[in-house]
Amino acid sequence: MAMMPPTAGLPQTAGRSWLASANHPQTDFPLANLPYGIFRHAGRSRIGVAIGDRILDLRACAEHGLLCGVGCEALEGCGGQCLNALMACGPQAWSALRRRVASLLDEDAAGEIKQRVDPLLISMNEAEMQLPAVIGDYTDFYASIHHATRVGKRFRPDNPLLPNYKYVPIGYHGRASSIVVSGTEIRRPCGQTKIQDSDPAFGSTRMLDYELEVGIFIGPGNTLGRALPIAEAEQHVFGLCLVNDWSARDIQSWEYQPLGPFLAKNFATTISPWIVPLEALAPHRVPATARPPGDPAPLPYLSAPSTDCAAIDLTLEVYLESNQMREAGAAPVLLSRGNLRDLYWTIDQLVTHHSSNGCNLRPGDLLATGTISGAEPGSEGCLLEMQSGAEAVRLPTGETRRFLKDGDTVIFRGYAQKDGLPRIGFGECTGTIVCGALS
Amino acid sequence: MAMMPPTAGLPQTAGRSWLASANHPQTDFPLANLPYGIFRHAGRSRIGVAIGDRILDLRACAEHGLLCGVGCEALEGCGGQCLNALMACGPQAWSALRRRVASLLDEDAAGEIKQRVDPLLISMNEAEMQLPAVIGDYTDFYASIHHATRVGKRFRPDNPLLPNYKYVPIGYHGRASSIVVSGTEIRRPCGQTKIQDSDPAFGSTRMLDYELEVGIFIGPGNTLGRALPIAEAEQHVFGLCLVNDWSARDIQSWEYQPLGPFLAKNFATTISPWIVPLEALAPHRVPATARPPGDPAPLPYLSAPSTDCAAIDLTLEVYLESNQMREAGAAPVLLSRGNLRDLYWTIDQLVTHHSSNGCNLRPGDLLATGTISGAEPGSEGCLLEMQSGAEAVRLPTGETRRFLKDGDTVIFRGYAQKDGLPRIGFGECTGTIVCGALS
Repeated sequence: MAMMPPTAGLPQTAGRSWLASANHPQTDFPLANLPYGIFRHAGRSRIGVAIGDRILDLRACAEHGLLCGVGCEALEGCGGQCLNALMACGPQAWSALRRRVASLLDEDAAGEIKQRVDPLLISMNEAEMQLPAVIGDYTDFYASIHHATRVGKRFRPDNPLLPNYKYVPIGYHGRASSIVVSGTEIRRPCGQTKIQDSDPAFGSTRMLDYELEVGIFIGPGNTLGRALPIAEAEQHVFGLCLVNDWSARDIQSWEYQPLGPFLAKNFATTISPWIVPLEALAPHRVPATARPPGDPAPLPYLSAPSTDCAAIDLTLEVYLESNQMREAGAAPVLLSRGNLRDLYWTIDQLVTHHSSNGCNLRPGDLLATGTISGAEPGSEGCLLEMQSGAEAVRLPTGETRRFLKDGDTVIFRGYAQKDGLPRIGFGECTGTIVCGALS
Repeated sequence: MAMMPPTAGLPQTAGRSWLASANHPQTDFPLANLPYGIFRHAGRSRIGVAIGDRILDLRACAEHGLLCGVGCEALEGCGGQCLNALMACGPQAWSALRRRVASLLDEDAAGEIKQRVDPLLISMNEAEMQLPAVIGDYTDFYASIHHATRVGKRFRPDNPLLPNYKYVPIGYHGRASSIVVSGTEIRRPCGQTKIQDSDPAFGSTRMLDYELEVGIFIGPGNTLGRALPIAEAEQHVFGLCLVNDWSARDIQSWEYQPLGPFLAKNFATTISPWIVPLEALAPHRVPATARPPGDPAPLPYLSAPSTDCAAIDLTLEVYLESNQMREAGAAPVLLSRGNLRDLYWTIDQLVTHHSSNGCNLRPGDLLATGTISGAEPGSEGCLLEMQSGAEAVRLPTGETRRFLKDGDTVIFRGYAQKDGLPRIGFGECTGTIVCGALS
């Protein structure tokens, strides 16, 4: 983002909308956000933009001639049933579209515009959100050194952080087919596990966990064989979402060597439905400071011209609601709070590394950061990390958790907020654990 | 295949075709084979069936009313530009289509049929083969115990075969975007490597290798959450192809812990263009014998009702042709010869394991076996395994190889052959190494 001023893509005057719910101080979706998603309403799937408690139907906007000034390809992309075509258009087209949408919703818009736009706003309560894109490939990284160290201690007590960690942004391929949208029930998976000296056995996981991550949707791709220089990497990022990389720890510890996690994770991955554009996060860019002085410098291909704005100050929260809590009317309880800026590797480094061998990224591909954890207690991005003190998590009902139980709902929230600026929220990424395989 | 007689899907009289090249004893594509692929000819991509030195245009057959008796969905599938829709139809539809295509090409076909079919045969020389399917997800297994043991010795001398190997069909997710069709040039990738005590560095791989594998294309998928019982697994397999899982060993050894291979492999994976139906291989089914007596029995979910026909007797060969050999007019040299039946895990076990946690497989998904190696010298499926004696491979020109050099062409061939039956061939899976990244 070094080349983009923080206010690019929005008129300087942007701030308040004529839609009252967009001006509420606690809304995730003010005029400064304008995330994209796919919603289903009246039997049809369309591209929408979240604003307050409504969704602006972008296809209808295009059909009603409200998107003049937006390029042909982006205009065509707005008519799709997934975001892939719009993602392929690139930052200039996204900026033009974003400026235009903002102008339609700005409190300074002409009365005639407001009249034409108002019927194209659908209540979020009446729409069902769907996966935002056809995800060709899904890659999961391991970019939090605090997570890598804490988890490494459990799997390899003598050797928690491997020698490659500070040089290589470690990643692996995940499963695209089982990515589901927030709200989808998560079925407790079966698998092989081996407990201490007993024989391996097959059955339901007893160590089901969540992992708090941020997803990176790829915009324009790269040709097979052409690496992306780090200075260009963010031009290939359409936007961000929340990701829950559900993990069965007992399956994982038995299967993961030597080729990495497989069935321990590919039974489901949940993503939040709204993709927040990087432009909306521009005011919340901060220096990358997670690599402490004295650590090896990134190799040249991973060294950005400037790291002044390489990180993003994005607060991330995990809440849990058990069946018992629901019945007692208790609010979901906060389990942890972390921040995207604590990652050891930045988004541009992840994208650059991924393509550094010529691997082709395609519009709609999803990269995830890996579990985001901070250094301090209370910022752990998964249950596994909270157990170093051998104490279970305690819920308001007196229940305890080492791992998730059936009926538990896990809720992720993410938001960027600082004085005087509207909150840029990600909405929710939720899933409830249900028991038993389908037959 | 236990429930399908060896000749299912072909008239009992099948054998010779009225197309002379289909009756040549050395053809890969006799009437008994009839593999599917996507070919490009006259500016259009279509589904074809290989027969002798020709391709039968299936879309044209459908348009000319030659596929009567084939169900609606399969008929529609034949008109596609990829095989996914046909793959989704399932074994009954595939059998009906296969019987019908065989009857069109059988020497006993009526003269009128021959006259109508003849113009729909395209010379293979005039067509360009493409990827056969839109591959949603690609999974690579590690099913050869001989490969796992030899490679394990190099990466973990003290601990070559991990304790999970005989219980878990080890697999991991690969990259779908960089799967290319046979004949595509393979660009030598760059990446991070670390040689002994020196600092990590970024540059072209110096240890580029091939891996000889067989690919398994998924037919009908399974719903997320519903595991496939092993007795049903092969009903979800459309057919097989050859796979070269190109690997950069120096990148791999530095990056692969703890989450498995990533950039060492995702720069390119080559597949052969023709998908051989399981029905064509039915006469070559053999008992699964690679698991020696005394090894632990597979867990119940991986135990098939019968293993009498669980393996496939498929010979697999690796040839190499260097630039110098090409210039000298020397024929490609055979580097190794292995057999699919030597795998520790069978195809139905791989499919079953993959879905055992509820992970959804989709039509067109690709599973690969992992490197196929035998126990004996001369049957190693990759160069890395040939170096246990510290001797390099010697080529007819006097050149030697530890790893691939620029200009090297690697050629895989596969065929099932036994007395009195026509050879069921896979065609070739080839790639030539070229130097340097695109800019």
